[in-house]
Amino acid sequence: MSKYIFANILGSFVFDEGFNLIDKGQVEDAENIAKRHTAVIPSDDEIKKILEFFKRKEFFAEFHKKNIELTKRQIRNSVSDDMLIIQAIGCIEDIDKAANTLIKRLREWYCLHNPEFSEKVSSNERFSELIIAKDRKELLKEISVPEESSMGAELGKGDVAQILLLAEHLKSLYILRKKQEEYIENIMKKVCPNLSIVAGHLIGAKLIEKAGGIKRLMEFPASTVQLLGAEKALFRHMRTGARAPKHGIIHKHPLISKSKRKEHGKIARALADKISIAVKIDYFKGEFIGDRLLLGLEERFSVK
Amino acid sequence: MSKYIFANILGSFVFDEGFNLIDKGQVEDAENIAKRHTAVIPSDDEIKKILEFFKRKEFFAEFHKKNIELTKRQIRNSVSDDMLIIQAIGCIEDIDKAANTLIKRLREWYCLHNPEFSEKVSSNERFSELIIAKDRKELLKEISVPEESSMGAELGKGDVAQILLLAEHLKSLYILRKKQEEYIENIMKKVCPNLSIVAGHLIGAKLIEKAGGIKRLMEFPASTVQLLGAEKALFRHMRTGARAPKHGIIHKHPLISKSKRKEHGKIARALADKISIAVKIDYFKGEFIGDRLLLGLEERFSVK
Repeated sequence: MSKYIFANILGSFVFDEGFNLIDKGQVEDAENIAKRHTAVIPSDDEIKKILEFFKRKEFFAEFHKKNIELTKRQIRNSVSDDMLIIQAIGCIEDIDKAANTLIKRLREWYCLHNPEFSEKVSSNERFSELIIAKDRKELLKEISVPEESSMGAELGKGDVAQILLLAEHLKSLYILRKKQEEYIENIMKKVCPNLSIVAGHLIGAKLIEKAGGIKRLMEFPASTVQLLGAEKALFRHMRTGARAPKHGIIHKHPLISKSKRKEHGKIARALADKISIAVKIDYFKGEFIGDRLLLGLEERFSVK
Repeated sequence: MSKYIFANILGSFVFDEGFNLIDKGQVEDAENIAKRHTAVIPSDDEIKKILEFFKRKEFFAEFHKKNIELTKRQIRNSVSDDMLIIQAIGCIEDIDKAANTLIKRLREWYCLHNPEFSEKVSSNERFSELIIAKDRKELLKEISVPEESSMGAELGKGDVAQILLLAEHLKSLYILRKKQEEYIENIMKKVCPNLSIVAGHLIGAKLIEKAGGIKRLMEFPASTVQLLGAEKALFRHMRTGARAPKHGIIHKHPLISKSKRKEHGKIARALADKISIAVKIDYFKGEFIGDRLLLGLEERFSVK
């Protein structure tokens, strides 16, 4: 007597020749059930009859429930390291946006009190730190502007304190940014060591974000990697015949930013090549050759 | 012998009848110098001759220097309370912008870990506080979602800690916002007590910001006050004949937001009237009648 065995998300089911259910078990027990029976794999016609069996209304609710469970599990399992990288690098971009908005306000506000000093210090980070650490008198002395010739107004203590609250906050925002960078460096080193060293961990993370994941970045040709992030310029080039962009996100790579402008295109092409190789190795968990790839580039373009 | 006395930014100068300099002193000593001489005020023709005297090159450098000093002093003295109000209310708007950018990131990132909870809590402030205070297990329990059915992934400790750094930061940003609000309330009560109580201190501050100062707000007719902040809708109305806006910034006033939509126009008109009165009283340092103005509105539109 031949039996049929059939599995779906509800579990494993065993039928006799007349397609009557004679045994069933959980999805997880599929092997045990198979062992208990000498079953054959049903043919197409036989499968149709088995499917007929599952059309009974009693299964509907269970199918619905199991389907949702399964989907939820798949969503849960889809959270991979690259999603963390994408969120973390996105977070840095958002921090930059927020910090820009707030530092602009801080400088404008503080200018009522001490415009000369604000003018002198261009680094936003140092600016917020210094105005917290020292008062107007000390800061004016440092840039050797006599107090009576300053255009800033002597504000009340409470008014200055209020400005400094914003400065304090910005200081903590800059610290947060640094911590996010360290975090990205750590995951990048773990998940894609080769990409991380060839492109740099921040540029690498941005490439992954732009591509939408390591797998997709790996599938891109090197020429796409070269222009990732320069879509606007690329489409303008295609539409209007304006000059083609030479590089996208990778233009911040020291190999490019430290070299002469007319070399940029050549270096960008070579760098994108190596990045493309690096990310493929990372995706397939190959060995670590990132340092050699980078060294090759550095020697070729004699930067160091 | 009649003498002429003439003052400019370099000081006070006394001339004899032949327009020769016979005495001079600092700007501050003008009175003393006037006392020492029996001088007449020069006529137009005589002034021309005196001005001739100041065309000498030797004065140029001093004129330049004094001019800059004077301008600096004027800039310094132009910093008034309304500039602090404008900066502080602008700061709140910037904080909101920054907080929006960051909270969107926080929710998206945290959703990888616990999407069900993020869905349930709509208040951004409570959301950041709760995810700091409790871990995923506890939060899922609170919204009675069994852990195994959650779509969120069990992340590493370091990964969760990184998300919470951002939450901590947002928490401090919300605290900063509250402190700014308190600060604005304090200056507004001091500088424009009437406006502050009729419009509310935040709406009042926004009106001052939009107008560009208390003086300019005071000069606006009530109908302009009513529509401040609705410029876009107003110009669309004028250009295309679309419906005219009923109110600008003041639409957030509880008198308007708590009443029926069809009443909005009428209330906005009356409210703008009283705001216009209040700001005039504040500008000319009149007595405090803001509470009576507001009470009158509340009784007329029977809100309380």
